[in-house]
Amino acid sequence: MTNHKSLMYQEIREIPAAVQRLLDESGPAIREAANAALTLDPSVIVTVARGSSDHACTYLKYVAELTLGLPVASVGPSVSSIYGAKLKLPNALCISVSQSGKSPDIVDLAGAARAGGAMTLAITNDAASPLAQAADRVIDIMAGPERSVAATKTFVTSAVAGLALLAEWQQDRALLAAIAALPERLARACAADWGALGAVMATESSLFTIARGPSFAMSGEAALKFKETCQVHAENYSSAEVMHGPVSIVGDGFPVLAFAAADAAEEAVAGIADAMAGKGARVFATTNKVKSASVLPAVRTDHWLTDPLALIVSFYAMVEKVAIARGINPDAPRHLRKVTETV
Amino acid sequence: MTNHKSLMYQEIREIPAAVQRLLDESGPAIREAANAALTLDPSVIVTVARGSSDHACTYLKYVAELTLGLPVASVGPSVSSIYGAKLKLPNALCISVSQSGKSPDIVDLAGAARAGGAMTLAITNDAASPLAQAADRVIDIMAGPERSVAATKTFVTSAVAGLALLAEWQQDRALLAAIAALPERLARACAADWGALGAVMATESSLFTIARGPSFAMSGEAALKFKETCQVHAENYSSAEVMHGPVSIVGDGFPVLAFAAADAAEEAVAGIADAMAGKGARVFATTNKVKSASVLPAVRTDHWLTDPLALIVSFYAMVEKVAIARGINPDAPRHLRKVTETV
Repeated sequence: MTNHKSLMYQEIREIPAAVQRLLDESGPAIREAANAALTLDPSVIVTVARGSSDHACTYLKYVAELTLGLPVASVGPSVSSIYGAKLKLPNALCISVSQSGKSPDIVDLAGAARAGGAMTLAITNDAASPLAQAADRVIDIMAGPERSVAATKTFVTSAVAGLALLAEWQQDRALLAAIAALPERLARACAADWGALGAVMATESSLFTIARGPSFAMSGEAALKFKETCQVHAENYSSAEVMHGPVSIVGDGFPVLAFAAADAAEEAVAGIADAMAGKGARVFATTNKVKSASVLPAVRTDHWLTDPLALIVSFYAMVEKVAIARGINPDAPRHLRKVTETV
Repeated sequence: MTNHKSLMYQEIREIPAAVQRLLDESGPAIREAANAALTLDPSVIVTVARGSSDHACTYLKYVAELTLGLPVASVGPSVSSIYGAKLKLPNALCISVSQSGKSPDIVDLAGAARAGGAMTLAITNDAASPLAQAADRVIDIMAGPERSVAATKTFVTSAVAGLALLAEWQQDRALLAAIAALPERLARACAADWGALGAVMATESSLFTIARGPSFAMSGEAALKFKETCQVHAENYSSAEVMHGPVSIVGDGFPVLAFAAADAAEEAVAGIADAMAGKGARVFATTNKVKSASVLPAVRTDHWLTDPLALIVSFYAMVEKVAIARGINPDAPRHLRKVTETV
């Protein structure tokens, strides 16, 4: 690693070690939280987050709905911070995710959830933060300092922390084994070559990212990263939803990035990718089940629920290069600061 | 009304009468559903929808969270249709919204919610549809045939149907009175002149729509309509969230449309609108509390929770003209059909 590389470049390469550190050092806290959740047996999970952390929550929403069958409600911070609503959450688990643990509206809503009866869990990179102090339990993601404005290693470690919680909760041996193997898989994902898409995005100004299921969280995170680091107007859509209206803006050459894991949605996502290619879009997909879209190399993991994590790591490695190709410093996006505090 | 006007133009003008018909003819069904919900006293509300109907659900999510304090989980149809998850919803109210009531994945998820123990309610324009048949209760939105591909009157009547349910459930007299006055208010909203924004959008290709709280559903609906009827890449963001990354793509003259009701978020939304104007964006806002953004005429209703409905009607009247100014037939968007069936 040379010192002329961007902070974002370096932090992406730190992801495998950060995940290993999380699993080693926060394993006990994760297992204790899982035991508490099992005892509570909640009827609903509420998530509280913004930005990249909210995409981690979307990933956890799919995992919880698909494996536990529990509904997961993402509650907007304004519900408490602006409107002052009193929440009724007598049998709820509330998961708040924030790298800094500092945004006042996130802290406020986590407090309102606790006041409403929820068991509250904070997933944060600062175990001494206001959010950690407002919660019943804390999982420290152990990512170390993240100095690039764009979150990468804190996104992945937040997602893995929540995933490990859900796996321990259900004592899902196959999923736990796949999580344990993640550091090696993510190191390989970091080296995957998505340069074919990167070359296109060096000059384009708009793009759709699409997916279904747990990968939909990754397509959301990818769209945000394109905006914040590359000034590209990328928008995320469910690959089903995109055919209900948004497809209307797709003209010849419009770029589309389809995230697919090796899961039950893979064929459906590939079908939509090909359908959009048929409308003239320039479509890239992380599955070899496509016929006309271009295939991006996807590192598969040991479980369909962990596949999406490898996809976002490969994406991060590509998008950092796109920013530089567009003449943008990925560490200092226009108009942004590292800690965004909103009320 | 002359016959060279678009179907979308005509259907927007039918909104006040359609709302009146809904309140008159489906009032008993709404009150019966409200009584059933009161008796059930659910711990969570689950919503099932796609496209414009999903924006109606976002509106109902905010209203339910703000007035009942209940968490509202929007569950993706793929959870059931693709992944086959078994949902555990023993004390849930499931609200499905679909104009046609025909998309197989929506019908499938509504059935899965019922199998999981939820009381299921369908809000639809076809009381004989598969969705209506799969649900315990039905509210017919009585919108009459909607022939334009872009939903307008069915969006508003779906939102009003759900709002009336929540108002009856809580016997909220002030809100019920505001709902009763909606037809007159929406007729005025239809005539509001948003031409200053329309003139800008006749030639722009990207835009952000922003809001917080219940109006956030309207900014989402507006972004979808810009895409489907005008081929404009409009994207919706929470006005708090937009400062966490998306603002990075805002350069000189980038258009922004801020939806604000006369509610607790109005000052905060106005502040973000001005902050984005300060970064060079060309910002329009439905509040006179802005300092540097341009003010769009907003018809206020008799309650802060009904204000967003007037905003979307004024928006619809404007966006139909933008489509025509861009040389697009708003009744037949590129690549789209009226009933989108996804699995």
